[in-house]
Amino acid sequence: MFREIGALEETESILHWDMSVMMPVGGAESRAEQLAVMKSTIHKMLTDTNLTTLLDEAEADPPVSLWEAANLREMRRSWRHANSVDGKLVAELSKASSRCEMIWRDARSKNDFAAVSQSLSKVIELVREKGRSKASEIGIEPYEALLDQFEPDIRIADIDRLFDDLAVFLPNFLDNVLTRQIAAGGSIKPEGPFNLAAQRALASELMERVGFDFEHGRLDISLHPFCGGIPDDVRVTTRYEESEFAQSLMGVLHETGHAMYERGLPVNWRLQPVGRARGMALHESQSLLVEMQVCRGIDFLNFAAPLIQKAFKGKGKAWLPENMQKLQAHVEPGLIRVDADEVTYPAHIILRYRLERALIDKELEVSDLPSAWNDGMRALLDVVPNSDRDGCMQDIHWFAGAFGYFPTYTMGALAAAQIYRAACEANGNITSAIAEGNFMPLMSWLRENIHSKGSFISTDEILVRATGMPLATKDFKSHLRARYLN
Amino acid sequence: MFREIGALEETESILHWDMSVMMPVGGAESRAEQLAVMKSTIHKMLTDTNLTTLLDEAEADPPVSLWEAANLREMRRSWRHANSVDGKLVAELSKASSRCEMIWRDARSKNDFAAVSQSLSKVIELVREKGRSKASEIGIEPYEALLDQFEPDIRIADIDRLFDDLAVFLPNFLDNVLTRQIAAGGSIKPEGPFNLAAQRALASELMERVGFDFEHGRLDISLHPFCGGIPDDVRVTTRYEESEFAQSLMGVLHETGHAMYERGLPVNWRLQPVGRARGMALHESQSLLVEMQVCRGIDFLNFAAPLIQKAFKGKGKAWLPENMQKLQAHVEPGLIRVDADEVTYPAHIILRYRLERALIDKELEVSDLPSAWNDGMRALLDVVPNSDRDGCMQDIHWFAGAFGYFPTYTMGALAAAQIYRAACEANGNITSAIAEGNFMPLMSWLRENIHSKGSFISTDEILVRATGMPLATKDFKSHLRARYLN
Repeated sequence: MFREIGALEETESILHWDMSVMMPVGGAESRAEQLAVMKSTIHKMLTDTNLTTLLDEAEADPPVSLWEAANLREMRRSWRHANSVDGKLVAELSKASSRCEMIWRDARSKNDFAAVSQSLSKVIELVREKGRSKASEIGIEPYEALLDQFEPDIRIADIDRLFDDLAVFLPNFLDNVLTRQIAAGGSIKPEGPFNLAAQRALASELMERVGFDFEHGRLDISLHPFCGGIPDDVRVTTRYEESEFAQSLMGVLHETGHAMYERGLPVNWRLQPVGRARGMALHESQSLLVEMQVCRGIDFLNFAAPLIQKAFKGKGKAWLPENMQKLQAHVEPGLIRVDADEVTYPAHIILRYRLERALIDKELEVSDLPSAWNDGMRALLDVVPNSDRDGCMQDIHWFAGAFGYFPTYTMGALAAAQIYRAACEANGNITSAIAEGNFMPLMSWLRENIHSKGSFISTDEILVRATGMPLATKDFKSHLRARYLN
Repeated sequence: MFREIGALEETESILHWDMSVMMPVGGAESRAEQLAVMKSTIHKMLTDTNLTTLLDEAEADPPVSLWEAANLREMRRSWRHANSVDGKLVAELSKASSRCEMIWRDARSKNDFAAVSQSLSKVIELVREKGRSKASEIGIEPYEALLDQFEPDIRIADIDRLFDDLAVFLPNFLDNVLTRQIAAGGSIKPEGPFNLAAQRALASELMERVGFDFEHGRLDISLHPFCGGIPDDVRVTTRYEESEFAQSLMGVLHETGHAMYERGLPVNWRLQPVGRARGMALHESQSLLVEMQVCRGIDFLNFAAPLIQKAFKGKGKAWLPENMQKLQAHVEPGLIRVDADEVTYPAHIILRYRLERALIDKELEVSDLPSAWNDGMRALLDVVPNSDRDGCMQDIHWFAGAFGYFPTYTMGALAAAQIYRAACEANGNITSAIAEGNFMPLMSWLRENIHSKGSFISTDEILVRATGMPLATKDFKSHLRARYLN
């Protein structure tokens, strides 16, 4: 039964990719219908009483094999998420979110928070109800139940410990980085235009260097870059601008990190719950490891800068590895999360985490969100949006009903630093190989220690086995110091 | 329930398109699994006892609206096809066909019919069993039950009447055409290479002329051209060769005919059985109407030849409409069906029809197929293959388990001529508009009289209402005389 569910989920993923990359506008209505039917078909299968009986029986006489036992545990997790919330609430929330998302698009462009405030309140009310239903089933807090959808088994106490630590560390660190950045002098922007075909060819070449196999995947164009598809057919997307190449290129490398994780999931457990990626934090760790830890670092840029220069027939100092590295490590507090550098990014996440918890726990009213947002930005980054469009309306997540997702970005950044540190310790050749454009030593280690674990053990267990400790801030802080203060 | 089934069938169609156009080779195994699960999910829904009860109830108290009544009739047809054959046989046949198709690919390339003979016998045995199960449910002959899968309600007696008439008409007519063709002198082939981007642009431009809406569809490349997707997102494919443009271009126009039919299906009945295309014969009539009746005719070529010449920067007599029309209407008996012109094509179909009937009815042994094929080719077209590769092994259909499909090609050709004759009689401006590249008058008439009927009435009823008579050979013969002997 789970094999069938898995195959339908893969189908859903292909439909999503096609929708973002291939589908003409006129196909939208039919596609929405196909996706809704696919979702309800999967939901019916997960709430089939026959499945409940079989799961109960299997748990009464659990399998001896560790992987089978883990698969049974993950089956129960899927079952629980599907069965703990009644169908009516799911449908209501789905409708309210779609509606709110639509209103948000319009309200954001008009910078009119009041226009979306009521629909957002409705969404939050339903999300809260969903959180409560799931929480009582699992025996945790409602907000934790929401987190659990994206990163299983994570607890509020864990996030608080990590984020409080970062919130103390970052402001002072940021000051030092900015001072030092001024002292170090400016960087030079390579001048365009940058031929689109050359950008695509370069992106493909570097993807292959990372280990992406085009017999098991594609690179295409979409409005918002993502990594979609399925483990044996991973589909990366990007968008190209003639005036700037680095954002697209780094984006492709980021998505390639996601893709390598999917490709490396345990082959023997395809379509089974235990064969899936562990969670969004670990997923983000793999993309950030490739993008932030490796590709924005000097080792990789020593290798890549000449290729980049050749691709665009560039001339002059702007194309030297040291200058490129400076450009890739430029730090500047700003209003917009998706444009943030890796030093200021956690502040954006900490703010969202605090606010979304307060919203779910009824400690913050939707009408007070804009001012709470602005206060938070001032306190954390010393910048204040002069419009809600660049403030609390900038991200789609809440308006589309996704609460509990934001923390995984920064948990991923922490995990990326921790995993890369451990990988380099375990194999001393990793960085020198990367300086030659060879990702094999790194990817072999990641496949063995991270990717192939699937959902066999928890994120923290994966990290303990691979890095010697559960998720912590230590390696991330060392990484920031090394890159920005040395 | 049928809305859900319809949405899953649409999903299946998108998966198929992706498989042929986008999927990297490494995705094949997963895709096969996704498609198998999709098929079995649909089959489960169609054989759900709850559905049976609901259908019985609805039939006991049938709807008053004619469209709803027709929808109920078509629901029962789908139900009957799914429920008349047991799941074990379906699975066995699917496995045997996949296996036979694989062996055929190899055997064909080695020209070794003996190597595939046993698997083909196995497939035929199972297809026969399927035909018997379906036939006894409907109360018709087993071979008729196979036909019914592709073209509902067609009977052997109808096909015999049409095909026997053609078999008498064609040999003598062909002789006259060939004599006249020699007398008329040769045609001149435009010289390449033909730029691929220019071919694509030209194909898109002419598709739009026919009425194809790129907000509701795409044009892409695949190994075997087809029209896939769904009514609101129709996806046409082709392949381009630098050395020759006409085959691809005429192929695109052919598939655009299919696409226009899908787009024109009744909007109010999307996802419902009555909203579907009537059958493969009528579908083929729409592609052949656009390709053979219109686009290979002098009216259209008067308009298109200058565009074609401009697209490839051609010079000289080869690019004149009259020469192009000569090239597009060249007749030459040959061994290969897919390369055949419209005069000799029916002979290929008549042979296959007679042989597949004999195979299903146990009047022909698989071991005697090669010699029966060669005898048939000699009798019908006076050519004899010197290898089975160019003989009975040339088409995939039988080896993949498709019996009862072939007749729809020629029924489509007859219907195309009949419908185009009626359209031109109904609106005297159709041909003059086409000479200006304006398909609107033709397409409006087709949409009203053919496309929008969906499966509301039978093919013959559609033809009677639109053309004044059921499917016949008369207009096809007039068309051939007009094009090839005038």
